[in-house]
Amino acid sequence: MISLDELPLRDDLRGLTPYGAPQAPLPVALNVNENTHPVPDEVASDVLDEIAVALRDINRYPDREFTALREGFAAYLGHGLTAGQIWAGNGSNEVLQHILQAFAGPGRTVFGFAPTYSMYPLLTQGTGAHWIAGSRDDDYEISADDAAAQVAAADPDVVLLCTPNNPTGTPLSLEVIEAVYEAARGIVVVDEAYHEFAPRDSASALTLLEGRPRLAISRTMSKAFAFAGARVGYLAADPTFIDALRLVRLPYHLSALTQAAAVAALRNASTMLAMVDEIVEQRDRISATLEALGYAPHESWSNFVLFGGVDDPQFTWQALYDRGVLVRDVGIPGHLRVTAGTETETTAFLEALASIGSPS
Amino acid sequence: MISLDELPLRDDLRGLTPYGAPQAPLPVALNVNENTHPVPDEVASDVLDEIAVALRDINRYPDREFTALREGFAAYLGHGLTAGQIWAGNGSNEVLQHILQAFAGPGRTVFGFAPTYSMYPLLTQGTGAHWIAGSRDDDYEISADDAAAQVAAADPDVVLLCTPNNPTGTPLSLEVIEAVYEAARGIVVVDEAYHEFAPRDSASALTLLEGRPRLAISRTMSKAFAFAGARVGYLAADPTFIDALRLVRLPYHLSALTQAAAVAALRNASTMLAMVDEIVEQRDRISATLEALGYAPHESWSNFVLFGGVDDPQFTWQALYDRGVLVRDVGIPGHLRVTAGTETETTAFLEALASIGSPS
Repeated sequence: MISLDELPLRDDLRGLTPYGAPQAPLPVALNVNENTHPVPDEVASDVLDEIAVALRDINRYPDREFTALREGFAAYLGHGLTAGQIWAGNGSNEVLQHILQAFAGPGRTVFGFAPTYSMYPLLTQGTGAHWIAGSRDDDYEISADDAAAQVAAADPDVVLLCTPNNPTGTPLSLEVIEAVYEAARGIVVVDEAYHEFAPRDSASALTLLEGRPRLAISRTMSKAFAFAGARVGYLAADPTFIDALRLVRLPYHLSALTQAAAVAALRNASTMLAMVDEIVEQRDRISATLEALGYAPHESWSNFVLFGGVDDPQFTWQALYDRGVLVRDVGIPGHLRVTAGTETETTAFLEALASIGSPS
Repeated sequence: MISLDELPLRDDLRGLTPYGAPQAPLPVALNVNENTHPVPDEVASDVLDEIAVALRDINRYPDREFTALREGFAAYLGHGLTAGQIWAGNGSNEVLQHILQAFAGPGRTVFGFAPTYSMYPLLTQGTGAHWIAGSRDDDYEISADDAAAQVAAADPDVVLLCTPNNPTGTPLSLEVIEAVYEAARGIVVVDEAYHEFAPRDSASALTLLEGRPRLAISRTMSKAFAFAGARVGYLAADPTFIDALRLVRLPYHLSALTQAAAVAALRNASTMLAMVDEIVEQRDRISATLEALGYAPHESWSNFVLFGGVDDPQFTWQALYDRGVLVRDVGIPGHLRVTAGTETETTAFLEALASIGSPS
């Protein structure tokens, strides 16, 4: 077998290794912020019926404009949005990739406040742009003044704001988003992948869309909707912003099966989202218990908890692994991240962690 | 509403319009080389069963390595291939995009013999590389010597060879492919999207894979498999070539629904492919009738026919449209392209064309 060096690979890819959270078949997998609750049977049945209809003309290319799905997202998001303001892709990674292909790419820059979603630098590099990492205050917060000053100084083509932030769980106030938008010359993307786990009365950046044509709010069905396997991400923005994405997407990028499945899941939004409250309850239980055990959990508005006070994250990760519990070492010294699972899974994690012994 | 010029779009995208074959709801749609035969009921039922199983843990991310699907493709392709030599994507466009991201991109060049698949220049531009159009002889053929000389002169990073070629239907001999591979410094991709419609005894470029680590053969389920709506393309190459694609694909790019549907369809390959003979029969009937009508059809080993002798393609396209038949104006002067449909659809096309009046 030849080596990668013997193929005419691009120079900027040499020496890289593929993205990869471990795919280990452990009984308690709390490492990639999935919704660990299966889709309820009645919803799965409705999804299957919709797919059965789609299979009747699966020999034809799908609706390139995925109109029914865009209407479904507009209705779900509310705020007076219409289908013309909606875009979707095979996971929010593809939606972000479309944005970077249209507005960043070679010779341009993409900015985010680190630590943040680990795919942002990879997506940036993959589309040929340059990643600029901004910084956060203690406990990963950012003030509006600081955020605006950093963005003004970096002058990026695209800003990616993750709120609640992955992997820290930190929310970002609307004031920060407004300040960043004012300070930015380029596109501002607010990634609300975990928005459904935030307090009910917390405002979405969707309320800021009106009159801000450089703003986009991205969401996903992978988390609250328990649909990670279906790969559906989406965003809301000005109709002209959406037109720009049409220039870079591959034709027919969303399969008829994906469109059918997502349309049916959206029709069952209230059922799909019913488990959010239970997940939030487990998240808060994790935070409280971690604190009691002597760890330092960070405030989280998402479906996971980042906690400090871990002397040797690699040791603790392995000890949990050996006890059948998979969590994530996100590369922040002294920290690990755990997804809030079902009550049983959460108990398994907390008991496994307690059995390892308290931090020093 | 603001205009695209008011957004900070990339300079190289300004003034472009999105790819778009018309999506017109005409009774006889023969414009995008679909398989116009629906998937047989018993196969659709098996696909649905497989999807039902996948829905049970659709809350989890899919198998990032789509192992079962790669095993299915290896078994279907034969030639002693194994899963480690297989890659797949959301349509062969995405597979080609992965190749260009890994081996072409900014500062590099991609070569093909024009006229060829219209997405090649778009995929090239979309990934930041430069497209170089080679030329063909009369009737769109290419000799091995000419092909090698053109490739040696252009010295591209990636060569895309479409056989049978879209939109002309022209086959390419294995001698040409071997000569191009020898002449090329870079990657050589043989796009066999329409291979199943070629004569049974015609050899696939898969027979050339052994000992050629820069060679890849791409295929699709959109044509012979009547699965255009499911968006499944794939390729075979050296395992190291596959490793290079892992560096650029988005994690979890193939949904659990796509994987399940394709695995089930492959299991039913013999049933799915049974309609190929009927389509080939209609293709040959189209060629014979076009000739009798005074048009000049080109030899085709695919599921469509490109025909010359059309005085005013735009007029004829519109006249067919007005009679409920959608064909494709591929931009070659004096030519139109038509997909071989069912017997009924083919008859509708031929009668509509005859009713317009013979060419001068």
